[in-house]
Amino acid sequence: MIRFECDYTTGAHPKILEALVTTNSEACPGYGVDIHCERARIMLRALCQAPEAGVHFLTGGTQANTTVIAATLRPHQGVLCAETGHINTHETGAIESTGHKVLALPAAEGKINAGQIDRYCREHYDNPAWEHMVQPGMVYLSHPTELGTVYTLAELEAISQVCRRRKLPLFVDGARLACGLAASDITLPDLARLCDVFYLGGTKAGLLFGEAVVITSPALNHDFRYILKQHGGMLAKGRLLGVQFEAFLEDGLFLEIGKQEVAQAMRLRRAFEEKGWPLFVNSPTNQQFPILPNGALGPLEQKYSFEVWEKVDEEHTAVRFCTSWSTTEEDVDALIVDIQQL
Amino acid sequence: MIRFECDYTTGAHPKILEALVTTNSEACPGYGVDIHCERARIMLRALCQAPEAGVHFLTGGTQANTTVIAATLRPHQGVLCAETGHINTHETGAIESTGHKVLALPAAEGKINAGQIDRYCREHYDNPAWEHMVQPGMVYLSHPTELGTVYTLAELEAISQVCRRRKLPLFVDGARLACGLAASDITLPDLARLCDVFYLGGTKAGLLFGEAVVITSPALNHDFRYILKQHGGMLAKGRLLGVQFEAFLEDGLFLEIGKQEVAQAMRLRRAFEEKGWPLFVNSPTNQQFPILPNGALGPLEQKYSFEVWEKVDEEHTAVRFCTSWSTTEEDVDALIVDIQQL
Amino acid sequence: MIRFECDYTTGAHPKILEALVTTNSEACPGYGVDIHCERARIMLRALCQAPEAGVHFLTGGTQANTTVIAATLRPHQGVLCAETGHINTHETGAIESTGHKVLALPAAEGKINAGQIDRYCREHYDNPAWEHMVQPGMVYLSHPTELGTVYTLAELEAISQVCRRRKLPLFVDGARLACGLAASDITLPDLARLCDVFYLGGTKAGLLFGEAVVITSPALNHDFRYILKQHGGMLAKGRLLGVQFEAFLEDGLFLEIGKQEVAQAMRLRRAFEEKGWPLFVNSPTNQQFPILPNGALGPLEQKYSFEVWEKVDEEHTAVRFCTSWSTTEEDVDALIVDIQQL
Amino acid sequence: MIRFECDYTTGAHPKILEALVTTNSEACPGYGVDIHCERARIMLRALCQAPEAGVHFLTGGTQANTTVIAATLRPHQGVLCAETGHINTHETGAIESTGHKVLALPAAEGKINAGQIDRYCREHYDNPAWEHMVQPGMVYLSHPTELGTVYTLAELEAISQVCRRRKLPLFVDGARLACGLAASDITLPDLARLCDVFYLGGTKAGLLFGEAVVITSPALNHDFRYILKQHGGMLAKGRLLGVQFEAFLEDGLFLEIGKQEVAQAMRLRRAFEEKGWPLFVNSPTNQQFPILPNGALGPLEQKYSFEVWEKVDEEHTAVRFCTSWSTTEEDVDALIVDIQQL
Repeated sequence: MIRFECDYTTGAHPKILEALVTTNSEACPGYGVDIHCERARIMLRALCQAPEAGVHFLTGGTQANTTVIAATLRPHQGVLCAETGHINTHETGAIESTGHKVLALPAAEGKINAGQIDRYCREHYDNPAWEHMVQPGMVYLSHPTELGTVYTLAELEAISQVCRRRKLPLFVDGARLACGLAASDITLPDLARLCDVFYLGGTKAGLLFGEAVVITSPALNHDFRYILKQHGGMLAKGRLLGVQFEAFLEDGLFLEIGKQEVAQAMRLRRAFEEKGWPLFVNSPTNQQFPILPNGALGPLEQKYSFEVWEKVDEEHTAVRFCTSWSTTEEDVDALIVDIQQL
Repeated sequence: MIRFECDYTTGAHPKILEALVTTNSEACPGYGVDIHCERARIMLRALCQAPEAGVHFLTGGTQANTTVIAATLRPHQGVLCAETGHINTHETGAIESTGHKVLALPAAEGKINAGQIDRYCREHYDNPAWEHMVQPGMVYLSHPTELGTVYTLAELEAISQVCRRRKLPLFVDGARLACGLAASDITLPDLARLCDVFYLGGTKAGLLFGEAVVITSPALNHDFRYILKQHGGMLAKGRLLGVQFEAFLEDGLFLEIGKQEVAQAMRLRRAFEEKGWPLFVNSPTNQQFPILPNGALGPLEQKYSFEVWEKVDEEHTAVRFCTSWSTTEEDVDALIVDIQQL
Repeated sequence: MIRFECDYTTGAHPKILEALVTTNSEACPGYGVDIHCERARIMLRALCQAPEAGVHFLTGGTQANTTVIAATLRPHQGVLCAETGHINTHETGAIESTGHKVLALPAAEGKINAGQIDRYCREHYDNPAWEHMVQPGMVYLSHPTELGTVYTLAELEAISQVCRRRKLPLFVDGARLACGLAASDITLPDLARLCDVFYLGGTKAGLLFGEAVVITSPALNHDFRYILKQHGGMLAKGRLLGVQFEAFLEDGLFLEIGKQEVAQAMRLRRAFEEKGWPLFVNSPTNQQFPILPNGALGPLEQKYSFEVWEKVDEEHTAVRFCTSWSTTEEDVDALIVDIQQL
Repeated sequence: MIRFECDYTTGAHPKILEALVTTNSEACPGYGVDIHCERARIMLRALCQAPEAGVHFLTGGTQANTTVIAATLRPHQGVLCAETGHINTHETGAIESTGHKVLALPAAEGKINAGQIDRYCREHYDNPAWEHMVQPGMVYLSHPTELGTVYTLAELEAISQVCRRRKLPLFVDGARLACGLAASDITLPDLARLCDVFYLGGTKAGLLFGEAVVITSPALNHDFRYILKQHGGMLAKGRLLGVQFEAFLEDGLFLEIGKQEVAQAMRLRRAFEEKGWPLFVNSPTNQQFPILPNGALGPLEQKYSFEVWEKVDEEHTAVRFCTSWSTTEEDVDALIVDIQQL
């Protein structure tokens, strides 16, 4: 079975694993105040050109999203996001469990835009019953989105501008940011400049686990570690996150992994297109969503794992193939051959 | 200014007020364990043909909704409701503030149906990522709805059946139930038989304030008063609720008020129809939503208060006129004349 | 049965009731933006010499406490209070239900002091594991306390000073403030000057219900009505609160009621002392806690209701007698005679 | 610097690390449904003689405590625990953040007993205002406690008996259970038999991270994975937990590590005693709390890290030394020599 069902099927990239093994017997203080976390923080601040930013390492995406959002909102506020956003669909109500409504906006291929955000705010404050409704309190984007699409720098600039005018903190979920950096014109310094908080995901880019949250808003960064601890996000052996991110950031490994995930996905994409299978969504990143004739499902499932996404019509089904840091040229070759032969 | 903007513009119906005045100097124990609350409980249980039901008196609808839902759900569960449901739109995220997602379903004229509920559950459990999504844990209906529409007994029977099969407690928000009883074929015994919990609203039917929550599910009723207290819903001078509900239930006053509110609304409805103003929604109860030519707004606003509901097109606006216990024959006569003369 | 068990056994003071009856048929907008609420706000601001203060009317004490505290704290913060404070003991965890720990301090006769607050903060920030502990985020006092005792102006000044130095908002629960004004040297302008938020309670001083929350901190007042709505505290017929508070504040009625409650309580206190029954706590307000020989309990319980507070030793029990706006000279005369004859 | 400040200063035990390295390139499904997690579950059920138990792997203790407690309690309930319990002192209000009060009981050397629990319940239900107070809803113990002490089997039996009579689920925090098994007469089957839920901690016993939660109560186990996900506790690469626990449970490695931690701690203890330094608490496990003359602090701090626990008097300070899986004979030898020479 060759696994394309998600981008977290295997362990760590060899360089990450080696860093963990090499440092295993070092004795460090706990909870993220060790030398490895500190070095990784300095590296990431430099990469973001944000020397004052707060950097916090968490173990997973749901935890990062919940902690950031809970830390940002006042009780009567909600978070604007695409209806397909991870926090709205696949976190078992984690945001609501902290008391906040997810204010879902209609999304085109997983994305929302500046106009929607502005309109939502205007309509909220224009409504005479505004105090009876949840106040929009921040904006959540994912980049890449849950559908593999990416924002352009121009789109992000426009969103950021609306957010600042409306005094809405802007948060970018970068669980797959390594791919986003490879497939869009948005850079780390752009994110640091345009957002109040974002994260660079490691779990889906070759770490055992780990997300690096970058907070450029001093008000939000203040006391953030309390809230991190409250949400169970302060790993006792915090050095594990520091060690992994040091290796991930060293010599652009994160960029290299992102590029490689995207490159293999593009090979798959061409194979789908050449086969005449339409794409459910136009994704330039490591998630590809071909629409298969139902007859192709069975044969492929015998050798490959992938995710059934949505029934498109009686005879066709959209599915998701994901590449990861460990997807090999050979894995993709094999799948391409099988597609061609179907 | 004659007020049609909502059904809580005036104080209490004379019989309610008289009961409060008459009993004012009695000394009673606090928190709803007095003789008046106890009598009102007995009367309501009898009217519902539910001798074992728990009956709790709360001051308002948001409080009733929040307390009932928080008492019912486990942390990973959400409440299914119409997208136009009060808990989804006009309670400032009160449900989310207790940790639960509102699972909004598309609604036709404010109503949802048995098929939608069943389908939602089936799709939830069919999804391989079900544990990553909020579990449907109960169903919330409002009857009448926020748009004045009502369920039929057959519709409620069907919903109840699905709920029992799916083990979803069914909760009916009866903030305007007095009108619902007047305008549908659903009776109090039906509600007690088909729901796990519902309430008979007093605030919008001539009480100063007060909602009577009827709980037929013993599991839900158990320890309900703790949760009532936790949500600030246990009125110190609880007897005020008992006294008002005694008078409200006595000799069918609640039915009479409901009928009168509906009767005046029907007079208005006929006037709109005769004028050729279409109705935004087909409401048989005390809320009427005519679509006015924009030119009619100004003249009417000089003498009457009403609510602007929605811009329908460039030249027309849907508005809401509400009748209440205190809406007089003369109030409606005046408005009808003015409509005719426009 | 003459009731001394609490100060909310009867309805409203005649002047309050009269105001409700007189205004009953007026039609007003809902939710506290009517002319009566507005007038009462202006009166209270003037009495507090705080022309800029926000004034919000809520129905009860638990609701007021929960709403204010939830509106003030960030998620990782708790509220410092006396271990005997109402929020720590008798609100079914309402504060915790909004996500916040109550940080209980040892209390002497229901009171805490400036030194304790300062020490708690110093120890918190001195502890190397401070981020693993709940951060003190505000201070809650009750005045009078749950034991009837009061703060002096000097004590409140000292607490306020520590709070400002430590950047801790100071909140005074004034559920029985009418008595506190009668029995301490603290005035409404003092409270407005020294606190960030406090309330003047009506429920225990002759209103049907109602607490007037005064917020002098603009940051806290901002968006407070959203949170009020979220917690079910925005009464539909909000005018009921405005009407009652207008009457309560008019010509110092609230002061008069407070004085009268205290005066009757002092008559009781003298009777206890003359009988040789020690006082469990030295209360100058409307709650009195004599320690009775157990043999006296039975005879008194036949004619009077009162609360058993605490078993003091095998032969003695502390009990609580409360006077209220409706306690008459004759009620107290009867009890005094019975005490003397025991 | 030789580190004795806590038991999570180093990485993983060599056997654990080897297992991670060996399995690194395997492709597994995510979220804990892989073959390694499944095997570890089977092993742990067998060791507990609890073939039906639910077993869930979480990354850390705060997360485990929060998830278990949130999954167990209804909104009006709190959790009984020792005042020194981790959930009461060092989790930044994580329990309160889920809406529940921690009901702290006075503790002797970190432990509570059956009588206290029973008395608390009796007093709760005897109090006429019981509905105004948080209902005791479960019991939390830590074994070993935060002070290194352990329960005896007889003590745990007695507590379990009260809990069952009072219908209170019993939860044992076993963050340091490996040491508890080495230093008490309580076994895994005892825990499975007497508790509703407990966990075997890996983080403080040689894993990179990981706690294995064992749930013997079917009601609590039902839907537990939803709540796990909601609290950010469902690790994407869940196999990391399975792999580590397989190695930890294999051939009794967890017992061996526990014994070794305790053995080195006992050597330290004897050195303290021989030096004439009294022990702050009588701990038979890997945390030792000698009371040092202040003059000894400086010299020791130059070569060793340890935690300052509490100032005992003007001239003495209690400190904590922790041994871990990686504490060597030589580390302890060095410290013993330095103690002797002071």
